[in-house]
Amino acid sequence: MTSTLPLDAVRGWTTDPVVRAAHRLDRSGFDPGSAPDAVVHAESVEDVVAVLAHAQATRTPVVVRGAGSGLSGGAVAGEGSLVLDLTRLNRITELSAADELAVVEPGVITADLDAAAAAHGLRYAPDPASAAISTIGGNIATNAGGLRCAKYGVTRDSVLGLDVVLADGRRIRTGRRTVKGVAGYDLTGLFVGSEGTLGVIVGATVRLRPIPVRTATLAAWFTDFGAAAAATAALTAARLQPAVAELLDAGCLEALGADGADSGAFLLVQTDGFGADAEIEAVRAVVEPFAVRVDLAADEAEAEALLATRRGALPALEKLGRVLVEDVAVPRSRLPEAVAAITEISRRSGLRIATMAHAGDGNLHPILVVDGDLDDHVWATAAEVFQTALDLGGTLTGEHGVGLLKRRWLRAELGDTAHDLQRELKAALDPHGLLNPGKAL
Amino acid sequence: MTSTLPLDAVRGWTTDPVVRAAHRLDRSGFDPGSAPDAVVHAESVEDVVAVLAHAQATRTPVVVRGAGSGLSGGAVAGEGSLVLDLTRLNRITELSAADELAVVEPGVITADLDAAAAAHGLRYAPDPASAAISTIGGNIATNAGGLRCAKYGVTRDSVLGLDVVLADGRRIRTGRRTVKGVAGYDLTGLFVGSEGTLGVIVGATVRLRPIPVRTATLAAWFTDFGAAAAATAALTAARLQPAVAELLDAGCLEALGADGADSGAFLLVQTDGFGADAEIEAVRAVVEPFAVRVDLAADEAEAEALLATRRGALPALEKLGRVLVEDVAVPRSRLPEAVAAITEISRRSGLRIATMAHAGDGNLHPILVVDGDLDDHVWATAAEVFQTALDLGGTLTGEHGVGLLKRRWLRAELGDTAHDLQRELKAALDPHGLLNPGKAL
Repeated sequence: MTSTLPLDAVRGWTTDPVVRAAHRLDRSGFDPGSAPDAVVHAESVEDVVAVLAHAQATRTPVVVRGAGSGLSGGAVAGEGSLVLDLTRLNRITELSAADELAVVEPGVITADLDAAAAAHGLRYAPDPASAAISTIGGNIATNAGGLRCAKYGVTRDSVLGLDVVLADGRRIRTGRRTVKGVAGYDLTGLFVGSEGTLGVIVGATVRLRPIPVRTATLAAWFTDFGAAAAATAALTAARLQPAVAELLDAGCLEALGADGADSGAFLLVQTDGFGADAEIEAVRAVVEPFAVRVDLAADEAEAEALLATRRGALPALEKLGRVLVEDVAVPRSRLPEAVAAITEISRRSGLRIATMAHAGDGNLHPILVVDGDLDDHVWATAAEVFQTALDLGGTLTGEHGVGLLKRRWLRAELGDTAHDLQRELKAALDPHGLLNPGKAL
Repeated sequence: MTSTLPLDAVRGWTTDPVVRAAHRLDRSGFDPGSAPDAVVHAESVEDVVAVLAHAQATRTPVVVRGAGSGLSGGAVAGEGSLVLDLTRLNRITELSAADELAVVEPGVITADLDAAAAAHGLRYAPDPASAAISTIGGNIATNAGGLRCAKYGVTRDSVLGLDVVLADGRRIRTGRRTVKGVAGYDLTGLFVGSEGTLGVIVGATVRLRPIPVRTATLAAWFTDFGAAAAATAALTAARLQPAVAELLDAGCLEALGADGADSGAFLLVQTDGFGADAEIEAVRAVVEPFAVRVDLAADEAEAEALLATRRGALPALEKLGRVLVEDVAVPRSRLPEAVAAITEISRRSGLRIATMAHAGDGNLHPILVVDGDLDDHVWATAAEVFQTALDLGGTLTGEHGVGLLKRRWLRAELGDTAHDLQRELKAALDPHGLLNPGKAL
């Protein structure tokens, strides 16, 4: 039986203070103020089972961790807890070009999976901005999004099946290798986005999709955000669905050094597939009346130059201070109201807030730029942003997860009964509350 | 409290034997041999709550029903049970073109939703063959598929949120109005496909998508299924992803009256979007070397003529006898083996089995054509088809659901632990087992 396996039989187990200290934080900016009691670098599923048996026997909370690139505090771990680090489980077990799928361990870096798929003309469609550093397991735990979601879906839409160790050590396989399938409840979907609170994902079967044969890129500059938002609403009304539609507000452009009539807002659009060029022309025709300037990339190099503006925004803001990246989403039609409200919150609070948005799905990243510590004033300001999203019929978190930071507002979003039901499911799967307690719910 | 509301306060409640008899069957071909004790045509959510309160107080099993078009026996109801018919809850409450979503009651006919969306240049992307008769609630209960799934996803991918009455009468809202969102566990996904066993869906927020600007259609005929399967594998290898890729085997073509060198298999392909024409040319270039004949539709009328072959297959088979429509799925690379095995099962059993398949996602519909009753020999033959799918790494059901008919094989597919976990979730949500007992699990 697994419970007879002592934890010190696990090779990757350590109480080294340096390792423990390095495993107390993620990229949320939240510091638990202490380090976990121990860290286990699992090297096999047996190690995971042993850790959970130990946790059950000693009633020790377990914080599962990938690359620690999360932005909501989901992987933060303090005194009294054990960190289960899965980054050494990093093999791509199978890549089937014929079935357009891959079977991976959770510690695989998302960009590495994408690169392996590219050798077959395929890609892993979800494209979180963190792909170069985050793990597929972490992406699954938070149901990570990215730039291409409106057209290609979020992480959940690319996960066909999971291999999970439950809190009590039972191991289950969910889902299947087929694209479609309705045998049994959707346990796969339940574990995706559960932030390490329902089980430990030790393997995943993910869907791969063809790399589009062609991509076309356009950028537009506006006098103000209202004009840019009107342009994106006009794209929707024209029933266009680009692969990428990214907005930057004046705060982002200011950090990038822009000024003048074209520094009020920026919109980057990409179309893809056999009709990419015809589709981008349709986009141009819709956007042009609202914009000060529209640039259509003639080649790959020009496209990269336009993308650089979007990519450069966060690094430019990071040069101005410590950043807190928020992640609310609203119905697309409420985007202008959301940005106006956030601008007003910034003015009132005296905190610099710059906003970038995935226009196609209404997901906004208001970025609070802070001089010094993330103090109560910062969190109170973030709370106003959360409340704005809820007031507009939106959500606290489009793609980063609830983690520690957004728990306080979760009940307001879900409603009492749905929140209770979530707790009942958690209790059914983890009755002693050992998996990432205090997170997500 | 709801439990004080007596069932006879519900206007749509009846024990009329004619109504009861009409509500004992769905389209699965399975006859429970008796009729339900009563039928309630709910006209409000309050009616649903009253029925569930009555069911709890009297420990009466409740079978929720839409149009009764299910093919797996999920809506079959016999003596001792109460049928909760939701077809009168059939309003489209909201249709937002700006947010590309609709809020609907469960009894809305799927095609009616699609037609309402079309007025705004939008469509409800899942397209079950039953769309003209089935309800959106039934589609959600079975996570229905259709022809466009490989490119546009299944029902689950178009459901943003649900309004659900739980077995104990609590009402919850799951999900959201935004395209993305990761606050809390994915209860929406859990209820989609749960076949009326976890709660009663009384409302849904569904995503709408732009109608493609252009569609192109091609048909190809082959000497045998192996050649057609090789052509579809070549399409995959060429990293093409058509919107529709439908296969018919020789049994289907024979029923349609075909003979000659081109009667071994039929492939219908549709591409859509701005690049539809360029993409269909790429499809033609790949398919042509494998085919006896390839026809590219020059206009809408020619496209309809090619589609008629696919659409006519099931009606042609229905003229030859009583049909049992199966619904297995296999990883795409195993399609040729699956069809070969099914052909062998047909030969051995002496039962005519014709197979149509959604080639893009490996979902096969082997259609057993029966002279007379669905007797033990028929079910035993169907069982061989199920086992074939499982042996090839596939699933019992791609899009129709487990219902009554496939329960026996479910544990073999899911594995003991995953099956146990599903039962634990069911017990947490419906401790007295009153919601569609004996189905799905």
